[in-house]
Amino acid sequence: MAWRFALALAPVASDDAREDFSDTFRPLDPGAPALPVGELSAQRGDGVFESLGVVDRHPQEVGPHLERLAASAALCDLPAPNPEQWRQAIRAAAAHAPITGEGVLKLILSRGVEHGATPTAWVTVADAADNSAVRERGIRLVTLDRGYALDVPTRAPWLLLGAKTLSYAVNMAAIREAKRRGADDALFVSSDGFLLEAPTANLILRIHGRFVTPLPAGGILHGTTQRSVFAHLERSGHDTAYEAIPVADLAKADAAWLVSSVRLAAPVTAVDGIRLAVDAPRTADLNRHLLSRRD
Amino acid sequence: MAWRFALALAPVASDDAREDFSDTFRPLDPGAPALPVGELSAQRGDGVFESLGVVDRHPQEVGPHLERLAASAALCDLPAPNPEQWRQAIRAAAAHAPITGEGVLKLILSRGVEHGATPTAWVTVADAADNSAVRERGIRLVTLDRGYALDVPTRAPWLLLGAKTLSYAVNMAAIREAKRRGADDALFVSSDGFLLEAPTANLILRIHGRFVTPLPAGGILHGTTQRSVFAHLERSGHDTAYEAIPVADLAKADAAWLVSSVRLAAPVTAVDGIRLAVDAPRTADLNRHLLSRRD
Repeated sequence: MAWRFALALAPVASDDAREDFSDTFRPLDPGAPALPVGELSAQRGDGVFESLGVVDRHPQEVGPHLERLAASAALCDLPAPNPEQWRQAIRAAAAHAPITGEGVLKLILSRGVEHGATPTAWVTVADAADNSAVRERGIRLVTLDRGYALDVPTRAPWLLLGAKTLSYAVNMAAIREAKRRGADDALFVSSDGFLLEAPTANLILRIHGRFVTPLPAGGILHGTTQRSVFAHLERSGHDTAYEAIPVADLAKADAAWLVSSVRLAAPVTAVDGIRLAVDAPRTADLNRHLLSRRD
Repeated sequence: MAWRFALALAPVASDDAREDFSDTFRPLDPGAPALPVGELSAQRGDGVFESLGVVDRHPQEVGPHLERLAASAALCDLPAPNPEQWRQAIRAAAAHAPITGEGVLKLILSRGVEHGATPTAWVTVADAADNSAVRERGIRLVTLDRGYALDVPTRAPWLLLGAKTLSYAVNMAAIREAKRRGADDALFVSSDGFLLEAPTANLILRIHGRFVTPLPAGGILHGTTQRSVFAHLERSGHDTAYEAIPVADLAKADAAWLVSSVRLAAPVTAVDGIRLAVDAPRTADLNRHLLSRRD
Protein backbone atom coordinates (compact mmCIF):
# COMPACT_ATOMS: atom_id res chain seq x y z
CA MET A 1 0.00 0.00 0.00
CA ALA A 2 1.23 3.45 -0.86
CA TRP A 3 0.03 6.69 0.72
CA ARG A 4 -1.23 9.09 -1.89
CA PHE A 5 -2.53 12.12 -0.06
CA ALA A 6 -3.64 13.49 3.27
CA LEU A 7 -5.33 16.59 4.50
CA ALA A 8 -5.75 18.16 7.90
CA LEU A 9 -9.22 19.41 8.70
CA ALA A 10 -10.08 21.94 11.42
CA PRO A 11 -13.51 20.75 12.61
CA VAL A 12 -16.22 23.42 12.65
CA ALA A 13 -19.58 23.43 14.46
CA SER A 14 -22.05 20.92 13.08
CA ASP A 15 -24.56 23.69 12.30
CA ASP A 16 -22.09 25.93 10.48
CA ALA A 17 -23.99 26.55 7.24
CA ARG A 18 -21.37 28.25 5.08
CA GLU A 19 -21.22 26.99 1.53
CA ASP A 20 -17.51 26.62 1.04
CA PHE A 21 -15.39 24.88 3.69
CA SER A 22 -12.25 24.66 1.60
CA ASP A 23 -10.39 27.08 3.87
CA THR A 24 -10.91 24.69 6.82
CA PHE A 25 -8.69 21.99 5.39
CA ARG A 26 -5.22 21.90 3.91
CA PRO A 27 -3.03 19.24 2.28
CA LEU A 28 -0.57 17.31 4.44
CA ASP A 29 2.41 15.28 3.36
CA PRO A 30 1.31 11.79 4.52
CA GLY A 31 4.93 10.79 5.14
CA ALA A 32 5.94 13.88 7.08
CA PRO A 33 5.48 14.67 10.78
CA ALA A 34 1.97 16.05 11.26
CA LEU A 35 0.71 15.26 14.77
CA PRO A 36 2.32 16.48 17.99
CA VAL A 37 3.15 13.83 20.60
CA GLY A 38 0.37 15.24 22.79
CA GLU A 39 -2.28 14.04 20.29
CA LEU A 40 -4.86 12.02 22.24
CA SER A 41 -5.34 9.75 19.22
CA ALA A 42 -1.72 8.62 19.64
CA GLN A 43 -1.63 8.72 23.45
CA ARG A 44 -4.98 7.09 24.20
CA GLY A 45 -6.63 5.93 21.00
CA ASP A 46 -9.15 8.64 21.87
CA GLY A 47 -11.08 9.41 18.73
CA VAL A 48 -13.25 7.83 16.05
CA PHE A 49 -12.73 6.88 12.44
CA GLU A 50 -14.17 5.53 9.21
CA SER A 51 -12.59 3.70 6.27
CA LEU A 52 -14.25 4.22 2.89
CA GLY A 53 -13.62 2.35 -0.29
CA VAL A 54 -12.83 4.51 -3.33
CA VAL A 55 -13.46 3.08 -6.79
CA ASP A 56 -12.22 5.00 -9.84
CA ARG A 57 -11.94 8.09 -7.61
CA HIS A 58 -15.53 7.75 -6.41
CA PRO A 59 -15.80 7.53 -2.60
CA GLN A 60 -18.40 4.88 -1.76
CA GLU A 61 -21.29 5.34 0.66
CA VAL A 62 -20.25 8.75 1.95
CA GLY A 63 -23.62 9.35 3.62
CA PRO A 64 -23.70 6.13 5.69
CA HIS A 65 -20.05 6.57 6.70
CA LEU A 66 -20.67 10.14 7.86
CA GLU A 67 -23.76 9.03 9.76
CA ARG A 68 -21.73 6.38 11.55
CA LEU A 69 -18.90 8.85 12.22
CA ALA A 70 -21.48 11.11 13.88
CA ALA A 71 -22.91 8.21 15.91
CA SER A 72 -19.42 7.20 17.07
CA ALA A 73 -18.63 10.81 17.98
CA ALA A 74 -21.83 11.06 20.03
CA LEU A 75 -21.03 7.85 21.94
CA CYS A 76 -17.57 9.27 22.70
CA ASP A 77 -18.84 12.76 23.70
CA LEU A 78 -16.97 14.33 20.79
CA PRO A 79 -18.45 17.37 19.04
CA ALA A 80 -20.79 16.41 16.21
CA PRO A 81 -19.00 16.53 12.85
CA ASN A 82 -20.30 18.98 10.23
CA PRO A 83 -21.42 16.67 7.41
CA GLU A 84 -20.99 19.21 4.63
CA GLN A 85 -17.46 20.10 5.77
CA TRP A 86 -16.52 16.40 5.73
CA ARG A 87 -18.21 15.83 2.36
CA GLN A 88 -16.12 18.60 0.84
CA ALA A 89 -12.93 17.26 2.45
CA ILE A 90 -13.72 13.75 1.19
CA ARG A 91 -14.30 15.10 -2.32
CA ALA A 92 -11.00 16.98 -2.24
CA ALA A 93 -9.14 13.91 -0.97
CA ALA A 94 -10.79 11.40 -3.32
CA ALA A 95 -9.45 13.40 -6.27
CA HIS A 96 -6.03 12.04 -5.27
CA ALA A 97 -7.09 8.38 -5.31
CA PRO A 98 -6.07 6.14 -8.21
CA ILE A 99 -7.80 7.27 -11.44
CA THR A 100 -8.89 3.70 -12.04
CA GLY A 101 -9.06 0.93 -9.50
CA GLU A 102 -9.47 0.87 -5.76
CA GLY A 103 -8.31 3.12 -2.98
CA VAL A 104 -8.89 3.57 0.74
CA LEU A 105 -10.00 6.86 2.25
CA LYS A 106 -9.82 7.23 6.02
CA LEU A 107 -11.58 9.82 8.14
CA ILE A 108 -10.16 10.41 11.60
CA LEU A 109 -11.69 12.64 14.27
CA SER A 110 -9.54 12.83 17.40
CA ARG A 111 -10.22 14.50 20.74
CA GLY A 112 -7.23 16.68 19.91
CA VAL A 113 -4.09 17.59 21.74
CA GLU A 114 -4.10 16.85 25.48
CA HIS A 115 -5.41 19.85 27.43
CA GLY A 116 -6.33 21.51 24.17
CA ALA A 117 -9.84 22.76 23.60
CA THR A 118 -10.60 21.48 20.13
CA PRO A 119 -10.73 18.16 18.31
CA THR A 120 -8.38 17.54 15.43
CA ALA A 121 -9.15 15.66 12.25
CA TRP A 122 -7.51 14.39 9.14
CA VAL A 123 -8.27 12.41 5.99
CA THR A 124 -5.88 10.05 4.23
CA VAL A 125 -5.96 8.40 0.82
CA ALA A 126 -3.96 5.33 -0.13
CA ASP A 127 -3.97 2.61 -2.75
CA ALA A 128 -6.02 -0.39 -1.66
CA ALA A 129 -4.32 -3.76 -1.35
CA ASP A 130 -5.19 -6.16 -4.19
CA ASN A 131 -8.11 -8.10 -2.73
CA SER A 132 -9.11 -9.92 -5.92
CA ALA A 133 -7.70 -13.30 -4.81
CA VAL A 134 -9.36 -13.07 -1.40
CA ARG A 135 -12.71 -12.26 -3.03
CA GLU A 136 -12.45 -15.35 -5.23
CA ARG A 137 -10.66 -17.92 -3.12
CA GLY A 138 -12.08 -16.83 0.19
CA ILE A 139 -10.83 -16.80 3.77
CA ARG A 140 -10.58 -19.18 6.70
CA LEU A 141 -11.76 -17.96 10.10
CA VAL A 142 -11.29 -18.99 13.70
CA THR A 143 -13.78 -18.00 16.37
CA LEU A 144 -12.38 -15.97 19.27
CA ASP A 145 -14.22 -15.09 22.45
CA ARG A 146 -14.87 -11.32 22.65
CA GLY A 147 -15.39 -11.73 26.41
CA TYR A 148 -18.74 -9.92 26.53
CA ALA A 149 -22.22 -11.35 26.89
CA LEU A 150 -24.69 -10.23 24.24
CA ASP A 151 -26.51 -7.85 26.62
CA VAL A 152 -23.39 -6.01 27.85
CA PRO A 153 -23.39 -3.19 25.26
CA THR A 154 -26.91 -2.14 26.20
CA ARG A 155 -26.28 -2.05 29.94
CA ALA A 156 -22.75 -0.56 29.76
CA PRO A 157 -22.59 2.15 27.06
CA TRP A 158 -19.26 3.42 28.48
CA LEU A 159 -17.67 0.35 26.89
CA LEU A 160 -18.29 2.14 23.54
CA LEU A 161 -19.13 -1.14 21.83
CA GLY A 162 -21.16 0.48 19.06
CA ALA A 163 -18.54 3.17 18.36
CA LYS A 164 -15.77 2.84 15.80
CA THR A 165 -13.03 4.26 18.02
CA LEU A 166 -9.31 4.51 17.36
CA SER A 167 -8.76 2.02 20.22
CA TYR A 168 -8.28 -0.96 17.92
CA ALA A 169 -5.42 -2.75 19.70
CA VAL A 170 -7.70 -5.70 20.56
CA ASN A 171 -8.97 -5.95 16.99
CA MET A 172 -5.38 -6.08 15.73
CA ALA A 173 -4.40 -8.64 18.39
CA ALA A 174 -7.31 -10.87 17.37
CA ILE A 175 -6.17 -10.86 13.74
CA ARG A 176 -2.63 -11.79 14.83
CA GLU A 177 -4.03 -14.62 16.99
CA ALA A 178 -6.09 -15.90 14.03
CA LYS A 179 -2.99 -15.94 11.82
CA ARG A 180 -1.02 -17.74 14.51
CA ARG A 181 -3.71 -20.41 14.36
CA GLY A 182 -3.29 -20.74 10.60
CA ALA A 183 -6.43 -18.81 9.64
CA ASP A 184 -6.83 -15.57 7.70
CA ASP A 185 -9.10 -13.67 10.06
CA ALA A 186 -10.93 -13.90 13.37
CA LEU A 187 -14.64 -14.14 14.05
CA PHE A 188 -15.60 -12.76 17.44
CA VAL A 189 -18.23 -14.61 19.45
CA SER A 190 -19.93 -13.42 22.62
CA SER A 191 -19.14 -15.09 25.94
CA ASP A 192 -22.67 -16.52 25.89
CA GLY A 193 -22.24 -18.17 22.51
CA PHE A 194 -23.51 -15.81 19.83
CA LEU A 195 -21.80 -14.79 16.61
CA LEU A 196 -20.63 -11.15 16.54
CA GLU A 197 -18.31 -9.74 13.87
CA ALA A 198 -14.76 -9.93 12.56
CA PRO A 199 -12.23 -7.37 13.85
CA THR A 200 -12.69 -5.23 10.74
CA ALA A 201 -15.71 -6.74 8.95
CA ASN A 202 -19.29 -7.90 9.38
CA LEU A 203 -20.51 -11.46 8.97
CA ILE A 204 -23.37 -12.46 6.67
CA LEU A 205 -24.65 -16.04 6.65
CA ARG A 206 -27.09 -17.65 4.24
CA ILE A 207 -29.29 -20.14 6.09
CA HIS A 208 -32.08 -21.91 4.20
CA GLY A 209 -32.00 -19.20 1.55
CA ARG A 210 -32.23 -16.27 3.97
CA PHE A 211 -29.35 -13.84 4.49
CA VAL A 212 -28.81 -13.12 8.18
CA THR A 213 -26.33 -10.96 10.07
CA PRO A 214 -25.80 -10.52 13.82
CA LEU A 215 -27.81 -7.81 15.59
CA PRO A 216 -25.91 -4.51 15.88
CA ALA A 217 -27.25 -4.17 19.44
CA GLY A 218 -24.96 -7.04 20.42
CA GLY A 219 -22.03 -4.63 20.52
CA ILE A 220 -20.88 -4.77 16.93
CA LEU A 221 -20.53 -2.02 14.37
CA HIS A 222 -23.49 -1.64 12.06
CA GLY A 223 -21.65 -2.13 8.79
CA THR A 224 -22.08 0.24 5.88
CA THR A 225 -21.09 -2.57 3.48
CA GLN A 226 -23.42 -5.06 5.16
CA ARG A 227 -26.28 -2.57 4.77
CA SER A 228 -25.44 -2.04 1.11
CA VAL A 229 -25.33 -5.81 0.52
CA PHE A 230 -28.69 -6.28 2.25
CA ALA A 231 -30.26 -3.49 0.16
CA HIS A 232 -28.90 -5.11 -2.99
CA LEU A 233 -30.20 -8.56 -1.99
CA GLU A 234 -33.62 -7.17 -1.07
CA ARG A 235 -33.89 -5.49 -4.47
CA SER A 236 -33.39 -8.97 -6.01
CA GLY A 237 -36.18 -10.37 -3.84
CA HIS A 238 -34.10 -12.10 -1.16
CA ASP A 239 -35.03 -12.24 2.50
CA THR A 240 -32.63 -10.57 4.92
CA ALA A 241 -32.68 -10.36 8.70
CA TYR A 242 -30.80 -9.15 11.76
CA GLU A 243 -30.77 -11.84 14.42
CA ALA A 244 -29.07 -13.09 17.55
CA ILE A 245 -27.29 -16.04 15.89
CA PRO A 246 -25.99 -18.87 18.11
CA VAL A 247 -22.53 -20.12 17.17
CA ALA A 248 -24.08 -23.53 16.46
CA ASP A 249 -26.02 -22.01 13.55
CA LEU A 250 -22.76 -21.89 11.57
CA ALA A 251 -23.44 -25.54 10.85
CA LYS A 252 -26.74 -24.61 9.18
CA ALA A 253 -25.18 -22.03 6.85
CA ASP A 254 -24.79 -22.99 3.21
CA ALA A 255 -22.64 -19.93 2.56
CA ALA A 256 -21.04 -17.11 4.54
CA TRP A 257 -19.16 -13.88 3.82
CA LEU A 258 -17.20 -11.26 5.66
CA VAL A 259 -18.05 -7.86 4.23
CA SER A 260 -16.21 -4.59 4.70
CA SER A 261 -15.56 -1.34 2.84
CA VAL A 262 -12.23 -2.22 1.27
CA ARG A 263 -11.95 -6.02 1.13
CA LEU A 264 -15.65 -6.06 0.09
CA ALA A 265 -17.29 -9.55 0.12
CA ALA A 266 -14.86 -12.32 1.04
CA PRO A 267 -16.44 -15.78 1.02
CA VAL A 268 -15.76 -17.81 4.16
CA THR A 269 -14.28 -21.19 3.27
CA ALA A 270 -13.90 -22.56 6.80
CA VAL A 271 -14.59 -21.70 10.42
CA ASP A 272 -12.46 -23.41 13.08
CA GLY A 273 -11.38 -25.90 10.42
CA ILE A 274 -14.92 -26.88 9.42
CA ARG A 275 -15.39 -26.23 5.74
CA LEU A 276 -18.14 -24.08 4.28
CA ALA A 277 -19.29 -24.17 0.67
CA VAL A 278 -18.50 -21.15 -1.49
CA ASP A 279 -21.22 -19.82 -3.76
CA ALA A 280 -19.00 -18.36 -6.47
CA PRO A 281 -21.74 -16.78 -8.61
CA ARG A 282 -23.38 -15.11 -5.60
CA THR A 283 -20.00 -13.87 -4.36
CA ALA A 284 -19.22 -12.42 -7.79
CA ASP A 285 -22.63 -10.76 -7.83
CA LEU A 286 -22.04 -9.17 -4.42
CA ASN A 287 -18.62 -7.85 -5.41
CA ARG A 288 -19.94 -6.51 -8.71
CA HIS A 289 -22.49 -4.59 -6.70
CA LEU A 290 -19.91 -3.40 -4.18
CA LEU A 291 -17.56 -2.22 -6.93
CA SER A 292 -20.32 -0.30 -8.67
CA ARG A 293 -20.69 3.39 -7.96
CA ARG A 294 -22.60 3.65 -4.70
CA ASP A 295 -23.72 6.82 -2.92
CA MET B 1 -0.34 21.03 32.71
CA ALA B 2 2.48 22.26 30.57
CA TRP B 3 4.63 20.16 28.28
CA ARG B 4 8.29 20.53 29.12
CA PHE B 5 10.21 18.20 26.87
CA ALA B 6 9.96 15.26 24.54
CA LEU B 7 12.35 12.98 22.79
CA ALA B 8 12.03 10.52 19.94
CA LEU B 9 13.69 7.18 20.46
CA ALA B 10 14.60 4.71 17.72
CA PRO B 11 14.10 1.31 19.42
CA VAL B 12 17.07 -1.06 19.19
CA ALA B 13 17.19 -4.82 19.76
CA SER B 14 16.63 -5.84 23.38
CA ASP B 15 20.03 -7.56 23.49
CA ASP B 16 22.00 -4.64 22.05
CA ALA B 17 24.74 -4.30 24.67
CA ARG B 18 26.41 -1.04 23.66
CA GLU B 19 27.14 1.28 26.58
CA ASP B 20 25.94 4.57 25.20
CA PHE B 21 22.54 4.82 23.52
CA SER B 22 22.45 8.60 23.34
CA ASP B 23 22.67 8.60 19.55
CA THR B 24 19.41 6.59 19.39
CA PHE B 25 17.27 9.41 20.74
CA ARG B 26 16.88 13.08 19.96
CA PRO B 27 14.90 15.97 21.44
CA LEU B 28 11.50 16.79 19.99
CA ASP B 29 9.48 19.96 20.36
CA PRO B 30 6.43 18.61 22.24
CA GLY B 31 4.18 21.22 20.63
CA ALA B 32 5.37 20.68 17.06
CA PRO B 33 4.28 18.07 14.50
CA ALA B 34 6.22 14.88 15.17
CA LEU B 35 4.19 11.84 14.08
CA PRO B 36 3.03 11.14 10.52
CA VAL B 37 -0.68 10.44 10.05
CA GLY B 38 0.20 6.81 9.26
CA GLU B 39 1.34 6.25 12.86
CA LEU B 40 -0.48 3.16 14.14
CA SER B 41 -0.63 4.70 17.63
CA ALA B 42 -2.86 7.42 16.20
CA GLN B 43 -4.73 5.24 13.71
CA ARG B 44 -5.40 2.22 15.90
CA GLY B 45 -4.18 2.86 19.45
CA ASP B 46 -1.69 0.14 18.57
CA GLY B 47 1.13 0.39 21.07
CA VAL B 48 1.88 0.33 24.78
CA PHE B 49 2.81 2.96 27.34
CA GLU B 50 3.82 3.80 30.89
CA SER B 51 3.34 6.92 33.02
CA LEU B 52 5.99 7.55 35.67
CA GLY B 53 5.92 10.09 38.45
CA VAL B 54 8.94 12.36 38.65
CA VAL B 55 9.76 14.00 41.99
CA ASP B 56 12.47 16.69 42.12
CA ARG B 57 13.72 15.38 38.76
CA HIS B 58 13.97 11.79 40.03
CA PRO B 59 11.92 9.34 37.91
CA GLN B 60 10.17 6.93 40.28
CA GLU B 61 10.21 3.15 39.97
CA VAL B 62 11.96 3.01 36.60
CA GLY B 63 12.65 -0.73 36.93
CA PRO B 64 9.04 -1.82 37.58
CA HIS B 65 7.74 0.50 34.84
CA LEU B 66 10.22 -0.91 32.31
CA GLU B 67 9.30 -4.46 33.35
CA ARG B 68 5.63 -3.72 32.77
CA LEU B 69 6.41 -2.00 29.44
CA ALA B 70 8.19 -5.20 28.39
CA ALA B 71 5.26 -7.36 29.56
CA SER B 72 2.78 -5.18 27.67
CA ALA B 73 4.97 -5.30 24.55
CA ALA B 74 5.12 -9.11 24.75
CA LEU B 75 1.32 -9.38 25.06
CA CYS B 76 1.01 -7.17 21.97
CA ASP B 77 3.69 -8.99 19.92
CA LEU B 78 5.85 -5.88 19.86
CA PRO B 79 9.65 -6.24 19.90
CA ALA B 80 11.04 -6.38 23.44
CA PRO B 81 12.28 -2.96 24.55
CA ASN B 82 15.99 -2.60 25.38
CA PRO B 83 15.92 -1.69 29.10
CA GLU B 84 19.24 0.14 29.12
CA GLN B 85 18.27 2.23 26.10
CA TRP B 86 15.03 3.25 27.82
CA ARG B 87 16.83 3.94 31.11
CA GLN B 88 19.16 6.34 29.37
CA ALA B 89 16.29 8.03 27.54
CA ILE B 90 14.36 8.37 30.81
CA ARG B 91 17.40 9.90 32.51
CA ALA B 92 17.84 12.37 29.65
CA ALA B 93 14.16 13.32 29.73
CA ALA B 94 13.85 13.55 33.53
CA ALA B 95 16.54 16.24 33.52
CA HIS B 96 13.88 18.48 31.94
CA ALA B 97 11.28 17.89 34.67
CA PRO B 98 10.64 20.58 37.31
CA ILE B 99 13.73 21.03 39.52
CA THR B 100 11.52 20.74 42.56
CA GLY B 101 8.05 19.27 42.72
CA GLU B 102 6.21 16.74 40.61
CA GLY B 103 6.28 15.87 36.96
CA VAL B 104 4.91 13.18 34.66
CA LEU B 105 7.12 11.19 32.33
CA LYS B 106 5.45 9.08 29.66
CA LEU B 107 7.00 6.24 27.70
CA ILE B 108 5.28 5.28 24.47
CA LEU B 109 6.18 2.33 22.26
CA SER B 110 4.08 2.20 19.09
CA ARG B 111 3.94 -0.43 16.36
CA GLY B 112 5.19 2.34 14.08
CA VAL B 113 4.00 3.70 10.80
CA GLU B 114 1.51 1.53 8.89
CA HIS B 115 3.31 -0.87 6.55
CA GLY B 116 6.62 0.21 8.09
CA ALA B 117 8.97 -2.38 9.48
CA THR B 118 9.96 -0.83 12.80
CA PRO B 119 8.28 0.35 15.95
CA THR B 120 8.50 3.99 16.93
CA ALA B 121 8.85 5.38 20.43
CA TRP B 122 8.92 8.62 22.30
CA VAL B 123 9.15 9.99 25.82
CA THR B 124 7.40 13.11 27.12
CA VAL B 125 7.84 15.18 30.26
CA ALA B 126 5.23 17.54 31.65
CA ASP B 127 4.38 19.26 34.91
CA ALA B 128 2.05 17.16 37.04
CA ALA B 129 -1.34 18.56 38.00
CA ASP B 130 -1.55 19.69 41.62
CA ASN B 131 -2.96 16.62 43.35
CA SER B 132 -2.49 17.81 46.94
CA ALA B 133 -6.20 18.53 47.52
CA VAL B 134 -7.25 15.15 46.10
CA ARG B 135 -4.72 13.36 48.33
CA GLU B 136 -6.16 15.07 51.42
CA ARG B 137 -9.86 15.45 50.70
CA GLY B 138 -10.23 12.25 48.73
CA ILE B 139 -12.41 11.15 45.84
CA ARG B 140 -15.91 9.78 45.27
CA LEU B 141 -16.27 6.73 43.02
CA VAL B 142 -19.07 5.05 41.14
CA THR B 143 -18.88 1.41 40.14
CA LEU B 144 -19.15 0.68 36.42
CA ASP B 145 -19.48 -2.75 34.84
CA ARG B 146 -16.36 -3.62 32.81
CA GLY B 147 -18.42 -6.23 30.97
CA TYR B 148 -16.00 -9.13 31.53
CA ALA B 149 -16.25 -12.04 33.92
CA LEU B 150 -13.23 -12.54 36.17
CA ASP B 151 -11.97 -15.55 34.19
CA VAL B 152 -12.09 -13.89 30.76
CA PRO B 153 -8.50 -12.54 30.70
CA THR B 154 -7.07 -15.99 31.28
CA ARG B 155 -9.09 -17.70 28.58
CA ALA B 156 -8.87 -14.86 26.02
CA PRO B 157 -5.38 -13.31 26.02
CA TRP B 158 -6.09 -11.56 22.69
CA LEU B 159 -8.26 -9.15 24.69
CA LEU B 160 -4.93 -7.77 26.03
CA LEU B 161 -6.43 -7.22 29.47
CA GLY B 162 -3.11 -7.30 31.28
CA ALA B 163 -1.38 -4.98 28.79
CA LYS B 164 -1.21 -1.21 29.16
CA THR B 165 -2.06 -0.42 25.56
CA LEU B 166 -2.65 2.95 23.93
CA SER B 167 -6.27 1.86 23.34
CA TYR B 168 -7.66 3.81 26.29
CA ALA B 169 -10.89 5.17 24.78
CA VAL B 170 -12.99 3.02 27.15
CA ASN B 171 -10.99 4.13 30.19
CA MET B 172 -11.56 7.75 29.22
CA ALA B 173 -15.28 7.14 28.56
CA ALA B 174 -15.65 5.55 32.01
CA ILE B 175 -14.14 8.62 33.69
CA ARG B 176 -16.54 10.87 31.76
CA GLU B 177 -19.47 8.65 32.81
CA ALA B 178 -18.36 8.83 36.46
CA LYS B 179 -18.23 12.64 36.29
CA ARG B 180 -21.65 12.75 34.66
CA ARG B 181 -22.91 10.85 37.71
CA GLY B 182 -21.37 13.42 40.05
CA ALA B 183 -18.37 11.34 41.10
CA ASP B 184 -14.66 11.95 40.59
CA ASP B 185 -13.64 8.62 39.16
CA ALA B 186 -14.92 5.20 38.15
CA LEU B 187 -14.32 1.83 39.76
CA PHE B 188 -14.64 -1.04 37.29
CA VAL B 189 -16.32 -4.22 38.46
CA SER B 190 -16.47 -7.54 36.64
CA SER B 191 -19.72 -8.75 35.16
CA ASP B 192 -19.77 -11.46 37.83
CA GLY B 193 -19.49 -9.01 40.69
CA PHE B 194 -15.85 -8.62 41.63
CA LEU B 195 -13.92 -5.39 42.17
CA LEU B 196 -11.33 -4.66 39.47
CA GLU B 197 -9.54 -1.29 39.13
CA ALA B 198 -10.15 2.33 38.24
CA PRO B 199 -9.55 3.45 34.64
CA THR B 200 -6.08 4.78 35.55
CA ALA B 201 -5.45 3.52 39.10
CA ASN B 202 -5.49 0.45 41.34
CA LEU B 203 -7.76 -0.06 44.34
CA ILE B 204 -6.51 -0.94 47.80
CA LEU B 205 -8.99 -1.72 50.60
CA ARG B 206 -8.31 -2.15 54.29
CA ILE B 207 -10.55 -4.86 55.73
CA HIS B 208 -10.16 -5.86 59.38
CA GLY B 209 -6.65 -4.41 59.41
CA ARG B 210 -5.45 -6.21 56.26
CA PHE B 211 -4.66 -4.38 53.03
CA VAL B 212 -6.12 -6.16 50.02
CA THR B 213 -6.12 -5.42 46.30
CA PRO B 214 -7.84 -7.24 43.41
CA LEU B 215 -5.92 -10.08 41.74
CA PRO B 216 -4.01 -8.95 38.63
CA ALA B 217 -5.14 -12.15 36.89
CA GLY B 218 -8.66 -10.70 36.82
CA GLY B 219 -7.68 -8.56 33.84
CA ILE B 220 -6.32 -5.51 35.57
CA LEU B 221 -2.91 -3.87 35.38
CA HIS B 222 -0.52 -4.92 38.10
CA GLY B 223 0.19 -1.48 39.50
CA THR B 224 3.71 -0.24 40.14
CA THR B 225 2.36 2.15 42.79
CA GLN B 226 0.22 -0.55 44.40
CA ARG B 227 3.29 -2.78 44.62
CA SER B 228 5.33 0.02 46.16
CA VAL B 229 2.58 0.70 48.71
CA PHE B 230 2.36 -2.99 49.61
CA ALA B 231 6.15 -3.21 50.08
CA HIS B 232 6.02 -0.13 52.31
CA LEU B 233 3.16 -1.55 54.40
CA GLU B 234 4.85 -4.93 54.72
CA ARG B 235 8.02 -3.24 56.00
CA SER B 236 5.85 -1.71 58.75
CA GLY B 237 4.48 -5.12 59.65
CA HIS B 238 1.09 -4.93 57.95
CA ASP B 239 -0.60 -7.85 56.22
CA THR B 240 -1.23 -7.47 52.49
CA ALA B 241 -2.97 -9.76 50.03
CA TYR B 242 -4.15 -10.13 46.42
CA GLU B 243 -7.67 -11.52 46.35
CA ALA B 244 -10.79 -11.90 44.28
CA ILE B 245 -12.86 -9.30 46.14
CA PRO B 246 -16.66 -9.40 45.78
CA VAL B 247 -18.26 -5.96 45.34
CA ALA B 248 -20.16 -6.58 48.59
CA ASP B 249 -16.86 -6.50 50.49
CA LEU B 250 -16.76 -2.73 50.01
CA ALA B 251 -19.13 -2.61 52.98
CA LYS B 252 -16.50 -4.34 55.14
CA ALA B 253 -13.72 -1.87 54.28
CA ASP B 254 -12.79 0.66 56.94
CA ALA B 255 -10.64 2.57 54.42
CA ALA B 256 -9.88 2.50 50.71
CA TRP B 257 -7.51 4.23 48.30
CA LEU B 258 -6.95 4.56 44.59
CA VAL B 259 -3.23 4.49 43.91
CA SER B 260 -1.39 5.48 40.75
CA SER B 261 1.95 6.89 39.65
CA VAL B 262 1.03 10.56 39.45
CA ARG B 263 -2.05 11.13 41.65
CA LEU B 264 -0.42 8.76 44.22
CA ALA B 265 -2.72 7.64 47.09
CA ALA B 266 -6.17 9.23 46.92
CA PRO B 267 -8.46 8.20 49.79
CA VAL B 268 -11.89 7.03 48.68
CA THR B 269 -14.63 8.95 50.49
CA ALA B 270 -17.64 7.26 48.89
CA VAL B 271 -18.55 4.49 46.46
CA ASP B 272 -21.94 4.76 44.74
CA GLY B 273 -22.93 7.37 47.33
CA ILE B 274 -22.11 5.17 50.32
CA ARG B 275 -19.57 6.93 52.49
CA LEU B 276 -16.25 5.43 53.53
CA ALA B 277 -14.13 6.65 56.43
CA VAL B 278 -10.84 8.38 55.58
CA ASP B 279 -7.78 7.44 57.60
CA ALA B 280 -5.92 10.73 57.29
CA PRO B 281 -2.72 9.69 59.11
CA ARG B 282 -2.39 6.49 57.06
CA THR B 283 -3.07 8.41 53.83
CA ALA B 284 -0.40 10.97 54.73
CA ASP B 285 2.01 8.13 55.51
CA LEU B 286 1.37 6.49 52.12
CA ASN B 287 1.87 9.74 50.23
CA ARG B 288 5.05 10.56 52.17
CA HIS B 289 6.34 7.18 51.06
CA LEU B 290 5.22 7.68 47.47
CA LEU B 291 6.83 11.13 47.30
CA SER B 292 10.13 9.81 48.66
CA ARG B 293 12.85 8.88 46.21
CA ARG B 294 11.98 5.36 44.98
CA ASP B 295 13.97 3.20 42.59
